[in-house]
Amino acid sequence: MRLLTSILLAILLHFTFETFAQTIHLKDYNIAEVKDATPVVVKAIEDAKAKGIRKIKFPKGTYHFYKTFAPDFYCAITNNDNGLKRTPFPIMGFHELEIDGNGAEFIFHGKMIPFIIENSENITIRNLSIDWEKPFYIEGEVIANNPDTKTFDVKINTDYKVANGHLYVVLERDDTPYEKDFGFRFAIPEGDQMEVGQNIFWDKKLKKPLYNTKLYQLNTRNIEAKELQEGIVRLKAKSKELPPVGAVLNSKGAYLFNRTSPAFRVFKTKNIIFNNVNVYHAGAMGLIAERSENIKLDAFNVKLREGSQRMVTTTADATHFCNNKGVITIKNCLFENMLDDATNIHGTYVRVNKVIDEYSVAVETYHPHQKGYLFGEAGDSVRIVDHNKLQPKTTSLALKEVKYVNEKISILTFHQSIKGKVELYNGIENISWNASAIIENNIIRNNRARSILLSTNQPVVIRNNYLSSQMSSIRITGDLRLWNESGPTNSVLIENNTFEDCLYGGNPNQSIILIDPQYKSKEMMDEKYKYCKDICIKNNVIKSFENSILTAQSVEGIEFTNNKIVQTNTYQAIFPKSPNVDLRNCSNVKISSNSFMKSNGEKGTLKVDGKTETFDLPPKSAFEFFSIMK
Amino acid sequence: MRLLTSILLAILLHFTFETFAQTIHLKDYNIAEVKDATPVVVKAIEDAKAKGIRKIKFPKGTYHFYKTFAPDFYCAITNNDNGLKRTPFPIMGFHELEIDGNGAEFIFHGKMIPFIIENSENITIRNLSIDWEKPFYIEGEVIANNPDTKTFDVKINTDYKVANGHLYVVLERDDTPYEKDFGFRFAIPEGDQMEVGQNIFWDKKLKKPLYNTKLYQLNTRNIEAKELQEGIVRLKAKSKELPPVGAVLNSKGAYLFNRTSPAFRVFKTKNIIFNNVNVYHAGAMGLIAERSENIKLDAFNVKLREGSQRMVTTTADATHFCNNKGVITIKNCLFENMLDDATNIHGTYVRVNKVIDEYSVAVETYHPHQKGYLFGEAGDSVRIVDHNKLQPKTTSLALKEVKYVNEKISILTFHQSIKGKVELYNGIENISWNASAIIENNIIRNNRARSILLSTNQPVVIRNNYLSSQMSSIRITGDLRLWNESGPTNSVLIENNTFEDCLYGGNPNQSIILIDPQYKSKEMMDEKYKYCKDICIKNNVIKSFENSILTAQSVEGIEFTNNKIVQTNTYQAIFPKSPNVDLRNCSNVKISSNSFMKSNGEKGTLKVDGKTETFDLPPKSAFEFFSIMK
Repeated sequence: MRLLTSILLAILLHFTFETFAQTIHLKDYNIAEVKDATPVVVKAIEDAKAKGIRKIKFPKGTYHFYKTFAPDFYCAITNNDNGLKRTPFPIMGFHELEIDGNGAEFIFHGKMIPFIIENSENITIRNLSIDWEKPFYIEGEVIANNPDTKTFDVKINTDYKVANGHLYVVLERDDTPYEKDFGFRFAIPEGDQMEVGQNIFWDKKLKKPLYNTKLYQLNTRNIEAKELQEGIVRLKAKSKELPPVGAVLNSKGAYLFNRTSPAFRVFKTKNIIFNNVNVYHAGAMGLIAERSENIKLDAFNVKLREGSQRMVTTTADATHFCNNKGVITIKNCLFENMLDDATNIHGTYVRVNKVIDEYSVAVETYHPHQKGYLFGEAGDSVRIVDHNKLQPKTTSLALKEVKYVNEKISILTFHQSIKGKVELYNGIENISWNASAIIENNIIRNNRARSILLSTNQPVVIRNNYLSSQMSSIRITGDLRLWNESGPTNSVLIENNTFEDCLYGGNPNQSIILIDPQYKSKEMMDEKYKYCKDICIKNNVIKSFENSILTAQSVEGIEFTNNKIVQTNTYQAIFPKSPNVDLRNCSNVKISSNSFMKSNGEKGTLKVDGKTETFDLPPKSAFEFFSIMK
Repeated sequence: MRLLTSILLAILLHFTFETFAQTIHLKDYNIAEVKDATPVVVKAIEDAKAKGIRKIKFPKGTYHFYKTFAPDFYCAITNNDNGLKRTPFPIMGFHELEIDGNGAEFIFHGKMIPFIIENSENITIRNLSIDWEKPFYIEGEVIANNPDTKTFDVKINTDYKVANGHLYVVLERDDTPYEKDFGFRFAIPEGDQMEVGQNIFWDKKLKKPLYNTKLYQLNTRNIEAKELQEGIVRLKAKSKELPPVGAVLNSKGAYLFNRTSPAFRVFKTKNIIFNNVNVYHAGAMGLIAERSENIKLDAFNVKLREGSQRMVTTTADATHFCNNKGVITIKNCLFENMLDDATNIHGTYVRVNKVIDEYSVAVETYHPHQKGYLFGEAGDSVRIVDHNKLQPKTTSLALKEVKYVNEKISILTFHQSIKGKVELYNGIENISWNASAIIENNIIRNNRARSILLSTNQPVVIRNNYLSSQMSSIRITGDLRLWNESGPTNSVLIENNTFEDCLYGGNPNQSIILIDPQYKSKEMMDEKYKYCKDICIKNNVIKSFENSILTAQSVEGIEFTNNKIVQTNTYQAIFPKSPNVDLRNCSNVKISSNSFMKSNGEKGTLKVDGKTETFDLPPKSAFEFFSIMK
């Protein structure tokens, strides 16, 4: 009997201990009583690590995170700005951890990255929202314009400063209390103010970019500013047309300096789930995941806060995935009002800077946003690609060693000889790190740029989404020019989506679905080689005021079937001469059973180039040939 | 006999092996045949480390170092700009290493740090010179000026660019060969061009700053530029007077962005010798040594290259020592034409940002150039200092722990309670890390700013030097305001030096020897507390056109004896009303046996404030009292 009691007691104690040990409740850390939640959360994360605790839970409430006491880490973050980054959530080296916000709101102050998640596995982030007290942009309504002086006046809603004839975004800075004693303020090196740069005009009522907003885009070379009175600034800059009264100007900092603070940085992490997370704002991307495996977003929303006056959510992409593997799941999400794409899934080519010997090459990343990029590690498979023709020169090659030299250069060493197979400027593609993706039941709307960009060699399904972006909705590409995005797609299924009135920004060379690998020149597009394979677009509803529905270049196996195309009158077409479907260098084409009746009763137009395998349209096709060019 | 032979053979082999193993000869690495010496030298240093080799020797010659393949390291370098730094000499974690240049010339290309020496001991650098192909400034002669338009024209000798009405310094950049293919150039994020900022005008013939050059200094807020023809640029900026025709303008980049590339970075290193080293140029300091012990400079010269047209050597201090201990020896050096001091030996106060509990405080560095500063480590002794009165509030306190939080904040934990002894904004001084210094047989001339700055609690001897700087020659100070330089001097001997025509730049509040700890206000200077102790100035020759020879504030024990003061007519005095000697809040004053006869036959003037312990001048003194103010 005593033995049984002891056993039961032991079980009970074990159970209690286990239950206790598995969760840190932040109410026990008195989080509700502090002004700055940063040190409290950092301590909780340290404790979780030290004690092997797997869950941190917030009491419901609003918490403010300041950067003053946030630990910093040097981060090279692809497609964002590198540097020392401060975070209250340094989730590094965890085997399992769940952060449950319990519906909490997190408000950030100044340049920080809310979550840095690195070298971890089995991470869950749920039930929380992220916002900033002061946004990483200026925003305000145009209240007057003057064609004679070529100026316009903006009533600015956000923190700003006019100095030396220029307009600056003002961010929150470190808590340096003795400033007021000494009156000495170092604004610029702290990076807490930045001159306005990239900009776009918004429709105040519809809360989306203005129709043909490209017309009003300010040349960032010289934006002159004069403060007329507190809150009202007169601006002068080159643009095709003066912005109309009533439009809302949004301008972040200068190109390559305005992506400092994504909401979530994920690096070298396996199995990560985001569930019921709202990102109202970030000074860069909502989520950037790199060199990670299996990432699931379920109700990860990048959206305007209800009742907020702001036009813009994240100042870059809502989500971005580079160099990942496994499966990326994006479902039940709302992505709206970003200054860039909803998602972009790709790898990054590096470029050969020097052939060192028979077994090794020095490679370089080209774009400044790829400084410090981890291209690959020993054991990865890569292949060498002709940079002009985008054509593989080798099959799979295993990496023996990758030696980081500096943020631009690494040295790759191969097991086998690459003699004669590689030359200066060639691209190298990591074929091991490509993710499969399921993108379903999402709403993507009212953002600058595209909805979805893809360059991955693993299967992708895009299903049951509502898509309404200002440029192309889905873009499948690859290039060895500016961005060097790698990973030709091998299998993409686009079905049961509704596309509505995309392409209204006025950017040239767009298409609702745009497949356009970037060759050095048209001549480099080889008839015998197709960059992409097996793209199936079926059962979608495509409502469009603009002409260009599908442009497909260099695809082996393109199916466009059973789509319902509806011409709308929402806006006037900006590029009325574009064909509805434009095929270049495609083979194995199937276009059938679509419905498309234009308001004038005509059929849709289909343009086919001389490199495309000719085919017969079924007699009842909604399209007719427009031309065949050699 | 066989035994003896074996022993002899063994000895011989051992000897040969030792001799071989102790030196890497870079001629064996074919260094003379490569365009870029960087990878060769990096390999040699790796080999030395792997094999325990203690010496690397260059064949005499000229070697070019490019940054393309230089390894990079994130460095927080006090009083310089932090960041990822590339170097061909990553001397890290060595127990003994000598680099013998054998008279070689090293030419650097672009933003690099020639030598990064960290966490090492017993390091010798000898027989080499350092220069850059393209300097970190623009330089050119004023060939015209126009009082009506308030513009002047400069014939620029260095690489520059005029864009959007502004003038930029252009540096060498990474070797990115495919630029020309794509025509896409990212200049700004690479940091390879910078708008002109801090500036000074030089005397072309004398190769020193212009007399009263302060008059011509351009306000950096807005320097407008227009290229008249290739090499000739018209500038417009605010200055008190237009620069005269024939003057040479030198301008580096903007404040806080123009100290990227010192020649030598030394950190956490013990016993380091520089011998016969010439630094002709650097894009920051010549040498910055931090948290190191025993540093000897013998013929470490920062000087103009013979035959060069350049006016300026290093764009910041020739040498700078912060937070060191042991002995700093500077002898037989020539320091000329720098844009800042010849040397500065000091510690840095941190400031209390938050009192956490009875045993710990969060401290912060104030100046942006002190981000990431390593203030101290467990075991160091520190004391707390009143920030207004510069007065210690505690005796020595031992640090139990120092926790780095971010580049601004660390948390200090003490063994004993500090309850009631510390408050917000107080300074904390590291009293363990102060170096003694011997500065003798040097020539310091023709630089902007001062010759020698001191704030160290260990004895310093300044002997047998020739000193001719444009501001104060020797400045002994301490502050809890802008720079937060710590370490009141306790013993300084200044003897047998020749000072010649200092103070010609036109800066106010200078003195040839200036002792001026910085209080928040005059009222905070406590009569009962003297910041500095035991400063003896004797047997010097002081030739001066300007009045102010010695200003001493808050010194207990100031001796000024047996100095020969000679009034010169080199220039007109800019501040003719200054007393020759000015004493404030001093005690234990001894002024005797000096000779000083002005050209008008009068004695020198001595001003003494009411806080200074009164004393009688000996009857034959070269000085007479000027005034006593309460």
